[in-house]
Amino acid sequence: MATGTLPLVFSRHKVPLTLYLFIYMGLLHCQQFIIPFKAPSDCRAEQFFDISSLSCVSCGPNQRRSTTGLSCVCQTGYQTLTTDKMSITCQQCPIDKPAVTKDGFGCIRCPGAVSDEGNCKCPPGSFLVERDINGNLLDEARCETCNGDSPASTVPSSSGDRCERCQASFIDTSCECKSPNILAGGLCFRPGSLSTNVNPSVNYAQLKFSIQSAWFLENLYSSSAACLVFSNLTACQALGNMCVMNMHSFSGVSTDACGLFNTIFRSKASLSSTQDISYWRANLPWLYYGDEPGLASRVLQTDPVPTGFSFRGTKKNTDIRLLAAVYNVRGEFLRWEPVGGKNLQLCPQPATKQAAAFSFGTAYQESCDLSVAELLGSHPEPLFYDVFMDLGGGENPKLLPLPTLVLNQQYSGRFINQESMRNWYLSRRMFLIDMLSGREKSLSSLPKVIRVASSVKIRFQLVPRTQEGQVFPPLMVVTYRDVPITDINTQTVSTSFAVEYEMDQSEARMKTDTALGVMGGVAVLYSLLKTVSWKRRISSTDVDGVTLVKFLFFYAGDLANVFFIVTVGTGLYWLIFYKTLKAQQFVSVLLPLPPQEEKLVTYVGCAFALKAVQFLHKLFIQVSVDVFLIDWERPRSKTSRTVQAAGEMKREPSPVSIWRTYFVANEWNEIQTIRKISPTFQIMAVLFFLEVLGFSSLALRDPWTTLQRPSEAYTPSYSLTLRYGLAATLWLCIGLLQVIFFTVFYEHFVEDKIRQFVDLCSISNISVLLLSHRCFGYYIHGRSVHGHADTNMEEMNNNLRREQESLCGQRGLLPNTDIQTFQVALSNLLRMQYDRIQDSISRRNRPSRLTDTTMGHFSEPQCKAYHTMNHFLASVIDHAHPDMDYIVKDKLMFERVIGMEFLEPSEKSIFYNDEAHSFSNVLFYGNEATLLIFDTLFFCVVDLGSQSFILAAVLTYLQQMIFSFVRNALGRRNLAYKTLVDKRFLI
Amino acid sequence: MATGTLPLVFSRHKVPLTLYLFIYMGLLHCQQFIIPFKAPSDCRAEQFFDISSLSCVSCGPNQRRSTTGLSCVCQTGYQTLTTDKMSITCQQCPIDKPAVTKDGFGCIRCPGAVSDEGNCKCPPGSFLVERDINGNLLDEARCETCNGDSPASTVPSSSGDRCERCQASFIDTSCECKSPNILAGGLCFRPGSLSTNVNPSVNYAQLKFSIQSAWFLENLYSSSAACLVFSNLTACQALGNMCVMNMHSFSGVSTDACGLFNTIFRSKASLSSTQDISYWRANLPWLYYGDEPGLASRVLQTDPVPTGFSFRGTKKNTDIRLLAAVYNVRGEFLRWEPVGGKNLQLCPQPATKQAAAFSFGTAYQESCDLSVAELLGSHPEPLFYDVFMDLGGGENPKLLPLPTLVLNQQYSGRFINQESMRNWYLSRRMFLIDMLSGREKSLSSLPKVIRVASSVKIRFQLVPRTQEGQVFPPLMVVTYRDVPITDINTQTVSTSFAVEYEMDQSEARMKTDTALGVMGGVAVLYSLLKTVSWKRRISSTDVDGVTLVKFLFFYAGDLANVFFIVTVGTGLYWLIFYKTLKAQQFVSVLLPLPPQEEKLVTYVGCAFALKAVQFLHKLFIQVSVDVFLIDWERPRSKTSRTVQAAGEMKREPSPVSIWRTYFVANEWNEIQTIRKISPTFQIMAVLFFLEVLGFSSLALRDPWTTLQRPSEAYTPSYSLTLRYGLAATLWLCIGLLQVIFFTVFYEHFVEDKIRQFVDLCSISNISVLLLSHRCFGYYIHGRSVHGHADTNMEEMNNNLRREQESLCGQRGLLPNTDIQTFQVALSNLLRMQYDRIQDSISRRNRPSRLTDTTMGHFSEPQCKAYHTMNHFLASVIDHAHPDMDYIVKDKLMFERVIGMEFLEPSEKSIFYNDEAHSFSNVLFYGNEATLLIFDTLFFCVVDLGSQSFILAAVLTYLQQMIFSFVRNALGRRNLAYKTLVDKRFLI
Repeated sequence: MATGTLPLVFSRHKVPLTLYLFIYMGLLHCQQFIIPFKAPSDCRAEQFFDISSLSCVSCGPNQRRSTTGLSCVCQTGYQTLTTDKMSITCQQCPIDKPAVTKDGFGCIRCPGAVSDEGNCKCPPGSFLVERDINGNLLDEARCETCNGDSPASTVPSSSGDRCERCQASFIDTSCECKSPNILAGGLCFRPGSLSTNVNPSVNYAQLKFSIQSAWFLENLYSSSAACLVFSNLTACQALGNMCVMNMHSFSGVSTDACGLFNTIFRSKASLSSTQDISYWRANLPWLYYGDEPGLASRVLQTDPVPTGFSFRGTKKNTDIRLLAAVYNVRGEFLRWEPVGGKNLQLCPQPATKQAAAFSFGTAYQESCDLSVAELLGSHPEPLFYDVFMDLGGGENPKLLPLPTLVLNQQYSGRFINQESMRNWYLSRRMFLIDMLSGREKSLSSLPKVIRVASSVKIRFQLVPRTQEGQVFPPLMVVTYRDVPITDINTQTVSTSFAVEYEMDQSEARMKTDTALGVMGGVAVLYSLLKTVSWKRRISSTDVDGVTLVKFLFFYAGDLANVFFIVTVGTGLYWLIFYKTLKAQQFVSVLLPLPPQEEKLVTYVGCAFALKAVQFLHKLFIQVSVDVFLIDWERPRSKTSRTVQAAGEMKREPSPVSIWRTYFVANEWNEIQTIRKISPTFQIMAVLFFLEVLGFSSLALRDPWTTLQRPSEAYTPSYSLTLRYGLAATLWLCIGLLQVIFFTVFYEHFVEDKIRQFVDLCSISNISVLLLSHRCFGYYIHGRSVHGHADTNMEEMNNNLRREQESLCGQRGLLPNTDIQTFQVALSNLLRMQYDRIQDSISRRNRPSRLTDTTMGHFSEPQCKAYHTMNHFLASVIDHAHPDMDYIVKDKLMFERVIGMEFLEPSEKSIFYNDEAHSFSNVLFYGNEATLLIFDTLFFCVVDLGSQSFILAAVLTYLQQMIFSFVRNALGRRNLAYKTLVDKRFLI
Repeated sequence: MATGTLPLVFSRHKVPLTLYLFIYMGLLHCQQFIIPFKAPSDCRAEQFFDISSLSCVSCGPNQRRSTTGLSCVCQTGYQTLTTDKMSITCQQCPIDKPAVTKDGFGCIRCPGAVSDEGNCKCPPGSFLVERDINGNLLDEARCETCNGDSPASTVPSSSGDRCERCQASFIDTSCECKSPNILAGGLCFRPGSLSTNVNPSVNYAQLKFSIQSAWFLENLYSSSAACLVFSNLTACQALGNMCVMNMHSFSGVSTDACGLFNTIFRSKASLSSTQDISYWRANLPWLYYGDEPGLASRVLQTDPVPTGFSFRGTKKNTDIRLLAAVYNVRGEFLRWEPVGGKNLQLCPQPATKQAAAFSFGTAYQESCDLSVAELLGSHPEPLFYDVFMDLGGGENPKLLPLPTLVLNQQYSGRFINQESMRNWYLSRRMFLIDMLSGREKSLSSLPKVIRVASSVKIRFQLVPRTQEGQVFPPLMVVTYRDVPITDINTQTVSTSFAVEYEMDQSEARMKTDTALGVMGGVAVLYSLLKTVSWKRRISSTDVDGVTLVKFLFFYAGDLANVFFIVTVGTGLYWLIFYKTLKAQQFVSVLLPLPPQEEKLVTYVGCAFALKAVQFLHKLFIQVSVDVFLIDWERPRSKTSRTVQAAGEMKREPSPVSIWRTYFVANEWNEIQTIRKISPTFQIMAVLFFLEVLGFSSLALRDPWTTLQRPSEAYTPSYSLTLRYGLAATLWLCIGLLQVIFFTVFYEHFVEDKIRQFVDLCSISNISVLLLSHRCFGYYIHGRSVHGHADTNMEEMNNNLRREQESLCGQRGLLPNTDIQTFQVALSNLLRMQYDRIQDSISRRNRPSRLTDTTMGHFSEPQCKAYHTMNHFLASVIDHAHPDMDYIVKDKLMFERVIGMEFLEPSEKSIFYNDEAHSFSNVLFYGNEATLLIFDTLFFCVVDLGSQSFILAAVLTYLQQMIFSFVRNALGRRNLAYKTLVDKRFLI
């Protein structure tokens, strides 16, 4: 690096020492380099703003600040001599030439007066000449006039230095608009063409006042007249724009903007209409569709747009291409502009997000608050948009005009477009920001009111039953807001832009309702069947209030299932048809809009409420089931107990140890709330899929199936239907997978709590009788094949080994069978006997239930009753009571299906073989479907209410925990109460 | 609604029938109103674009399209006659006046040639006169020249219709720049002032080429010369701008923009500097700070900005007000502009989000891709910004210039600003988009390369140890990117804007390291103590490899705790000091930046890894603990068993039922993995707080504590430190609350599994001996106070009632005490005896462990050994072995604290009273701290890796499930193996 040649600012070799010192001092003093803040407006009159140092610097002598404030100019009456070297020199003009030329460099004598600026002044109609034709400065300036008569026909030019031809409309009046001609907007109109009685006011219906607009005052008459008389194209457009600024509204007076437009429209009825569209007259802008009643629906819902949308496949077409013809407020055509981004979407958003608005099927919504001050800077004048849809078409592209619905449009004071579609009055052309019409005094004054398109919505409607993705002509719905200006710097206006997709849901709704009706009917039948079955099982025949209530409980559950099936079906339908890959080759369905979803939400609510009733009913039944443990163990012999005190020997039976009963009761207590799935894993898995893998984005209102959206992409709102469909499906699927996993794999290879319990019964020589109904229940036969189970370790091991090596009998109730579990239908007699004994068990227990049962001990009579019951039931099983005998048989297939027994156990009780362990029906385990659906609905209902899967997950967990706790506590209490096993052993 | 007066477009009463018919036909034919798409450019030469009908319409005869294409004009040689009624009429000019006047309405004779447009043409230097001074059309036009000599000094005006004064620099050369004067940029320079040998090339270092820029070619010399010679302010600024466009770079040649700037800078050394800043010369822009080594750190890290930031309280001040002096490329000062929104933040974002960039303490980052085509439209010329910080100051506002670091700046080919801070060369002035300098041929051609500020970053650095929220002067870091233009319509450029806050973290880091060092040392001591204690408990004294490994295991756990404490402390420190309400009255800390957080992440990783080692170690110990159930029950008497076949009576002892042992073993198996908290509730609660209540927004990089942020607010990125601090604190707090809830409330009022187990032992007459070490363990004394437990329900109930009514002795090991649980230190002798018996239990069992133990039965010798062991242990407890006697004593407080016994059980074993149930140390229950910290760290590590609390929650749940399953399975196997209880009873 050769420093000698380097152009350093502070090359250490070239800068003299003093400069170094200076720099150093500078560093010491002004390390912070803080400078005072000066703006050009802060400088005094004799100062200018030095753009280099950003400070105010004094001008030279005889000078003052220029209008920009960035330089100095000579004072009035001083001519500029030199302008070299950044500064100028000024010299006073001599007395004989007191005025300064317009360029400031010369002095001159004036033909008339001297202006305040020190230049010569000419009378109106004439102009000042300071130099001759070759540029030589005259000694005395001249004031010249222009020859207005034909053929010269000139007036002074705007710059005031020569004559030029006057405007064409003046020509036959020698460049002056003499009365009775009317001068307006720089044009000269012959009298009689249009009454000058026009109404230049703009009506602000929201604010309930109207103001005389400076713009209308200046241009309304001239535009109308020029349009009518000269057929001036821009004038016609300008008039149309004024009508648009007036909200397309017709008031009673026909002299406002729209009234004048209409007058001219009618006067041009004889001319052919434009583009074969009868509402579009030659030379005029197209502002209105007709006002025939029902025209709106004919325009919007008759003929589809001749182009189909497709989400996928080779003919994928999701681009909505909108084009707008843009006019400025003066009626000049500016350009064709693709809609999007810069024009209709006022909210600042990244382009990638904004582009999503024009992807077919993506519900788009953006809104924001815009600063009025900034709008004033960026939109001083409104732009007007005629929006078309680009239909493509290669060589001959075609356009479809978009009908516009201006919600603010008034028709004789009525807001007809806010009424029903029949009354709609469609129009065309819109603007976004109007800062102009609200200026009252002059065009440069601040507007008193501004008008903003606070909501622009493009609505697509799918053709019903289309297979080709056809839509009706989209409708633009525009709402303007009148904002009175109070404090321009702090005021904001809100604005939104949305694209909506709609299809006629009446067919879907009808189908849903039909399904509901049909299945609801089936449910009634099924519930009736259940009620009948219940009546049989409680061995009662008379139809009373309890039966009705019971029927209602059954019906609640079945109806809940119907609602659940229908709603999940609906959700799944939309999920599959709107979202999945293969469907929608051509768009054939669109999501329901939020108001259309209300019905679904109601149905889900119904399903949940009914399911909750069913769930609580089942819970109640489960915690009040009758259970008794039958101990088959008999004392081995008489034991000689040594009563030490007396020293005498006395023989009494060696007691049968109660610990096996405790063990079985304890295990029974533990399997109360086990389920076929792990509920917490269920929640975690659903959360994982929804929130971690991003399945939740499948519920967004767009047709895409991307799971992880980049942060710069637009995220539409969620569809409740899809959210519900997704959550319910996912929940059911994961639940089903879990059930399969647990029943197929886990219970075979790891552990099966239900089978373990049955085994335990057998090993411990204890049978379990469960009565879920008065005369119906379940029986687990646990009589040990070894005769005794109350023994020591060696014998237990021996027994186990013998059984494993098949050296002993089989465990079944009937000889040489394996079946240990039965559904039992008891005869009335048996039940009555059971009740009698049970009564004495519970009689003494009852009072203690009211006080404290945890420590409540069982009395002697209870124990006696327990033994009686044990003996009675054992003898019944052993066929020892001929009047209470029973038979064992298989259940018919049909009986299994409808869940009802055909044979009445009138004389003999009936034991149905039941290898499916259906005694788990009195546990959570056997009611997995109900629980799973209840959890699903709970999760979905919370989510529909809060739109948060996480909250739903947390609350579902709490719900499961609470119900599981309640079930356990009540079940334990019931078990202790029914089997006389102390609660302390149920741990 | 009086239809008669309504100005309807189609008033039903006014429109004639034919019109109705017409409308109807129109509706039938053109329901869709489809029109062809035509743009002005689509129309043929003889057509114009009708802005009303948006179609092409033919012009009249002798007419052609105007240049805009929106109207017709007369063909060349035709004069315009009338312009009424939208159409014009044209007439050919007569032969004697063949040319058309410039206004098109007249015909005229020419003094010279006729142009292609049909107008008269004058030779260069003269101008055309068609009318006399009063506007009368001349018969023959004249060509006039301007008098360039002084004092007239005129040249033809730009509009070419009169003479005007020529530019000042020409004045002494009679409006002509004659050689040797140099004409450049419309100015006339005298020779010798500046060599014309300038280098107008722009160097694109990233693309490794430079191009001859049209703008530099046109303006570099003239700007430099005007700046040097005339001290023209705008010329100097323009020159400066060119240097900025050249990246402030000095190349070897001194004739490029920055070289010329430097030359002029040095030549003005004699003038006083601006604003007392030595780097800012009068008339010149301030482009550079000096190049003294180390100046950058002096500027950036010496004096704080004289204003303090405060997040809260009365002096709340978080607004960063930046101002920019804006210049256009021609060097004109445009305005003072507040920075933000429109200027530096190029990405379209809602204003509310963009405003967050200038709220002190909010780490801001926005980036997006911008379309080059759009940029070309919106930024045809670059704007230049001199950025200042507004220090406020009421009457006399002050500004602080922001030093800028241009990373692209080259200094003799080196990118010095990408090197260390010592070499930095600070500068000032920046631009955002330069579409100008890359235009090669002409200024209207497309640029070949564009330059974009791809990254603008404002970096604030907090003054160390400030209590008043002071910062050093913020630094702007700008990176430009050179983008070669290939396809302007599809190309995009990425750009980002960021605001960063930094503080010197070395002190915090030092404190962290000190804490780590000190606590690490303490941990060594503590681990040594543990090792010594362990050695005592296994009754071994020699230091071998196993001891070392054991020490390492202990040390892993303790070191993990140290890391955990330090990292949580760090996270909590930032959370409290940066986020909470009362702190930061004045800003005193700022968050560490992502690179500064790496160390913390490493520490957390270490903590997790070490904790995992400790956890696995504990798990291994727990599943290999020695356990034996001592059955105190003795046979009641000899039972006469009837051997039926022989018919003879034979007396043998009635077997003691094994079921109580099964029951106790089963319960022991069940409490293996219970914990002091509910782990799933823990996860759900943490999720609820973080994701539903929105606590996660506390981890955002801004100083606010709002939990729910509105969607339109800016969301900064997450701070890993805060995330970790938040998650860990929340986890620990909720865990602690749960522990308190469960120990204080739940276990007292609902159920206490541990106490239940101890009770069960007592009721079932079974003691439990647990040996976690060779000679150390726990003993639960379960000898029934009733003598017998193996009895029927009546007796059990009686026993229970008697005990409740205190009618029997107390349960304690020593008479009249209640203490049932002990820590035991066994004598070597006892242990050896134990091992001997145990050996025979396990000897036969071993082979079956390798094959199948689930069904492996126990052999006869094993059962005998079991009885031996039972007898042996029972007799030891009964003091029946004088050589293996034991004493019972209380543990010293100090022994409890350090977890080590002082007395060696050399002769007698020692039973320490232990009311705290510390036998739970061999269960999950007694190791809650380890488990909680392990779970916390697992959750945090997953979250740090994935930045997703939900994923962390799901994985933590899985982790808990897996470890709990493993612990249960292995624990069950160990229990079955050690106690000879068949696995089938451990359910």
